[in-house]
Amino acid sequence: MNPYSVILGNLGNTCDRFLSTGYKEPLDKALMVRQAASIPGVKGIELVGTWDIDERNVLEMKKLLGDAGLRCASIIPDVFGQKKWGRGSFTSRDAAIRADAVATTKAMVDVAVELGCGLVNLWPGQDGYDYALATDYIEERSWLLSGLQEVAAYAEGKKVRLALEYKVKEPRNHSYLARAADTLLVAAQCGEHVGITIDTGHAFMAGENVAEMIALLSLSGNRLFHLHCNDNHGAWDDDMIAGSVRLVEYFEMLYWLRRTGYAGWYSIDQYPYREDGHGAVEASVLFIQRLEATLDRVGLAAVEALLAKRDPIATARFVRERLLA
Amino acid sequence: MNPYSVILGNLGNTCDRFLSTGYKEPLDKALMVRQAASIPGVKGIELVGTWDIDERNVLEMKKLLGDAGLRCASIIPDVFGQKKWGRGSFTSRDAAIRADAVATTKAMVDVAVELGCGLVNLWPGQDGYDYALATDYIEERSWLLSGLQEVAAYAEGKKVRLALEYKVKEPRNHSYLARAADTLLVAAQCGEHVGITIDTGHAFMAGENVAEMIALLSLSGNRLFHLHCNDNHGAWDDDMIAGSVRLVEYFEMLYWLRRTGYAGWYSIDQYPYREDGHGAVEASVLFIQRLEATLDRVGLAAVEALLAKRDPIATARFVRERLLA
Amino acid sequence: MNPYSVILGNLGNTCDRFLSTGYKEPLDKALMVRQAASIPGVKGIELVGTWDIDERNVLEMKKLLGDAGLRCASIIPDVFGQKKWGRGSFTSRDAAIRADAVATTKAMVDVAVELGCGLVNLWPGQDGYDYALATDYIEERSWLLSGLQEVAAYAEGKKVRLALEYKVKEPRNHSYLARAADTLLVAAQCGEHVGITIDTGHAFMAGENVAEMIALLSLSGNRLFHLHCNDNHGAWDDDMIAGSVRLVEYFEMLYWLRRTGYAGWYSIDQYPYREDGHGAVEASVLFIQRLEATLDRVGLAAVEALLAKRDPIATARFVRERLLA
Amino acid sequence: MNPYSVILGNLGNTCDRFLSTGYKEPLDKALMVRQAASIPGVKGIELVGTWDIDERNVLEMKKLLGDAGLRCASIIPDVFGQKKWGRGSFTSRDAAIRADAVATTKAMVDVAVELGCGLVNLWPGQDGYDYALATDYIEERSWLLSGLQEVAAYAEGKKVRLALEYKVKEPRNHSYLARAADTLLVAAQCGEHVGITIDTGHAFMAGENVAEMIALLSLSGNRLFHLHCNDNHGAWDDDMIAGSVRLVEYFEMLYWLRRTGYAGWYSIDQYPYREDGHGAVEASVLFIQRLEATLDRVGLAAVEALLAKRDPIATARFVRERLLA
Repeated sequence: MNPYSVILGNLGNTCDRFLSTGYKEPLDKALMVRQAASIPGVKGIELVGTWDIDERNVLEMKKLLGDAGLRCASIIPDVFGQKKWGRGSFTSRDAAIRADAVATTKAMVDVAVELGCGLVNLWPGQDGYDYALATDYIEERSWLLSGLQEVAAYAEGKKVRLALEYKVKEPRNHSYLARAADTLLVAAQCGEHVGITIDTGHAFMAGENVAEMIALLSLSGNRLFHLHCNDNHGAWDDDMIAGSVRLVEYFEMLYWLRRTGYAGWYSIDQYPYREDGHGAVEASVLFIQRLEATLDRVGLAAVEALLAKRDPIATARFVRERLLA
Repeated sequence: MNPYSVILGNLGNTCDRFLSTGYKEPLDKALMVRQAASIPGVKGIELVGTWDIDERNVLEMKKLLGDAGLRCASIIPDVFGQKKWGRGSFTSRDAAIRADAVATTKAMVDVAVELGCGLVNLWPGQDGYDYALATDYIEERSWLLSGLQEVAAYAEGKKVRLALEYKVKEPRNHSYLARAADTLLVAAQCGEHVGITIDTGHAFMAGENVAEMIALLSLSGNRLFHLHCNDNHGAWDDDMIAGSVRLVEYFEMLYWLRRTGYAGWYSIDQYPYREDGHGAVEASVLFIQRLEATLDRVGLAAVEALLAKRDPIATARFVRERLLA
Repeated sequence: MNPYSVILGNLGNTCDRFLSTGYKEPLDKALMVRQAASIPGVKGIELVGTWDIDERNVLEMKKLLGDAGLRCASIIPDVFGQKKWGRGSFTSRDAAIRADAVATTKAMVDVAVELGCGLVNLWPGQDGYDYALATDYIEERSWLLSGLQEVAAYAEGKKVRLALEYKVKEPRNHSYLARAADTLLVAAQCGEHVGITIDTGHAFMAGENVAEMIALLSLSGNRLFHLHCNDNHGAWDDDMIAGSVRLVEYFEMLYWLRRTGYAGWYSIDQYPYREDGHGAVEASVLFIQRLEATLDRVGLAAVEALLAKRDPIATARFVRERLLA
Repeated sequence: MNPYSVILGNLGNTCDRFLSTGYKEPLDKALMVRQAASIPGVKGIELVGTWDIDERNVLEMKKLLGDAGLRCASIIPDVFGQKKWGRGSFTSRDAAIRADAVATTKAMVDVAVELGCGLVNLWPGQDGYDYALATDYIEERSWLLSGLQEVAAYAEGKKVRLALEYKVKEPRNHSYLARAADTLLVAAQCGEHVGITIDTGHAFMAGENVAEMIALLSLSGNRLFHLHCNDNHGAWDDDMIAGSVRLVEYFEMLYWLRRTGYAGWYSIDQYPYREDGHGAVEASVLFIQRLEATLDRVGLAAVEALLAKRDPIATARFVRERLLA
């Protein structure tokens, strides 16, 4: 059974461009950690640089997690949430900013080590572009690759794995790490300990079928390192409760995670703008656990036999008889 | 309990632009009618002009349906499937074609009367445009409106209701009857006996929430006259088995159909390109019936109470506890 | 020649959900007003409630605009940018919030009068929903309509026109005022002095062709009251410089604005997150002016003759010969 | 200056699922070849297996092309347009079909050799899936890879290059060769003489920026082998005249083709359902030639200097001053 984790900020206040103060009130970090720990199955927390963790509060956070019986599931370096990163972190025109992105990520590798955490989840969200005919893609992709190779080498020395998280757009209109396959191309040039994070919502909005991407990453050297779970309506990263929109695709995904031997976290990554954060995260966990239980009951072999039929009518029967009330 | 129906061609061979002969073999119409009749709950058939029905085979078709114990649920005039309609039917530049579209539709009203069917489902699929800066929208929309008003007047005299089916694109890059609200604007200018057909897949690909559109049409003078059921991945009219993609939205839709007193058909409209047509149609019917049974068990009042909470966390619990195995 | 205007905040700092402090530094409002005034053709400013204007700074803003030789093009009431509106303004479950939305809008009508401005642009951006099966659409749409009718009656008494701005999603996953036609249905129930604002980017992301919507609103009682100009990549409200993506559609739109006698503002509404605000707004104005000059040179009659051909090959020739260098 | 080519069928009759006879009348192949030859700059023809070319008419086609002064630009094996391919060609469950796909492609390699053509453009359009939870992705992707490796080995022996054409969906709801990067992953496992075809419309509908993909393929071992040109509205493969929708993206693409030293064909691939085929193809060629002439005038260095600014405002000025009339 894979352990569940939560990105800490999911439990707190969240804003958008029209309401920059956020829709709710800020919550105390200690309370958020306790809330996470109270959800059955949750064993870990992901921490975002600057927002949740920096060099100064490592010990405090270590204690908070320890007291709650939680591990640090990953560190997400902040290379996207400050003004200086606005026109790119690893791909900034400004060499000093690029160096800063590398240094920031290395520092987060160190923090990960201190927290006993073996995974850094790197989302270079500002590395992309907005307008056509305004960017030198070869130069920027080269900067991106060399920067990632440098942090990858550092992480390898510290025995920390690096998971690159892709997203097709937002906050940039086009991202360099946009989809599973292009991110895999980059990871493959960074070493065996560099892999991919699938954020289910990012994949849905890119038009990917998550299950197929899990299979693809498995075929490409077991490169699926981490998983962020949420749901959306298909056109945008709505960051909703898992299962609010998709049932069959979620079940299929869980099957492929098992079949390909994914041993990592099932981490919840939502933006419950207007909902109670604790309740929304718990709802995602409970939905996935429910499908996991069904999968246990049904068995991998039965699903494999279903897939072998390649018959959508048989699949529809399976959905009615095994997934629905 | 609403009766189910099937568009006859769903059970036969279907083609696309790369395989114009179709993916399967043609089936005998009599067999297709018997297959439809064998699906529990199916009480009616929709017939497409030219493809299934014309002035010459009315009696034959009447007998076929009668022998199978089925009613004609609607007639769908062919104003889209012949070369002459390629650049528009009601909006063709050629006045003779426009007159032909009107005459064709009137003839199908007569056929409906002969078959004891009170509904013509009109989909002017070729009435739209492909390129920007190549169409006079005011002229074409005026032609569309006057043509529809003429057939509406004729249908009223024959006591036949007219349901306008909308679709945002395909076969044209932009359709005039594109979404629920713009089609309602047109229907409202045609009389009380002119309403709307929601094809669930057309609505999904337009980014509409079907349940909200049902509510909107109810608020606008009970203008939902007919319903075509299928599913898709959101970007295109994939015409898949109902429930292959969406669960919560389908359940919500069924609730709103009941709450607003929709008394029409639940008609299946798919394109099972590679699947057995009979099996694919049956799978859609069985999925909807399963959700209908759940709705019966839960009761409308319980759903209304849930909606009153406006709390996605409560909704997620409802989905887990009432919809899932 | 229609006058140009700018939403004041376009010239200042803009944030998103990952960078709530914004990508740039805040600018002084007086400077922003002067920057707007320095753009050739710009004669007006749109002011957003709370952000730019409230009951206390009306005289100050009046003087700022007057000194710069600018008019107030519209007031945009803040019914979306404070925590209290987060779960809806006109459609909040809380009757006090709904009353507040009405009162806020009425107050902005009064402010408009004081500023000598005849237009309130109302965007009820929080009035929508995020999840299926979590909302009573009939109840909420009824609240929306009665609230809008109340502010419409008030505005009529003050001789202020009301323009309803639609947007298919963001900040809610589904908005009630989503597209041109559904918003027209609402406006038509509010009176002759209530019309529509087309934000070009909102229309693009809804899959609408703006030119056709201009024709539709013209046919529906000249209901196009206001226009917000920007561009995007089609999938989201990227709020980019006009013309960054679309050329032919923009030219077509300008033709239809002239043909239908649109006499309102060409207002710029962008989010230049990382660009110089002044330069980005000016770039939009200059692009539109360039196409306007081409349209003057070509003449409306020549475009009408082109449209009458309904021939995309002729259109492609026109684009090459008249629009391109 | 790169030579232009045309897919022969673009000039003939085209159908869709609602009008399987096509919107126009069939044309004589010899006439279509002469029409292609009459378009300035067109030096080649692409031939689709079964539709245009098979083992029996090679000499006849060779003479037709020779008489018209045209070369064969590529052969496109028919692994998508017959009933037997309907559930997959290289990924069919049926080993005999998979073997047939391999044999068919090898035969087309031989035909290419006979026609003096060094390029086979392989689009395995039926290799994908429609429904979630109905396919074994690992098995099918393995079949796909081994089949492609077999035909690649054969082509290498014949000194024929293989270009894999990707498309995100249609005719399947999900394709295996869906986007540039995932297709590159496959090509890289097939040898140096296997590369990628970018169909601009396929890339647009996948949300890719074509210029960036050209840069990516250049960085990945010069894997761009072939180019299919057309345009669309972003949501679907509308197969329209180039430049009907996009200007800036097309100009950017031409710059990157030059900068990366692309030496292949500019091939036109449209579906002029309702337009004169000859005129529609010519319109695409003329649009691209017009932008090419502008690029010549401006010079690569000036564009590179613009890109170095990374300033969308400077880009907007460039568009106004250099691209627009």
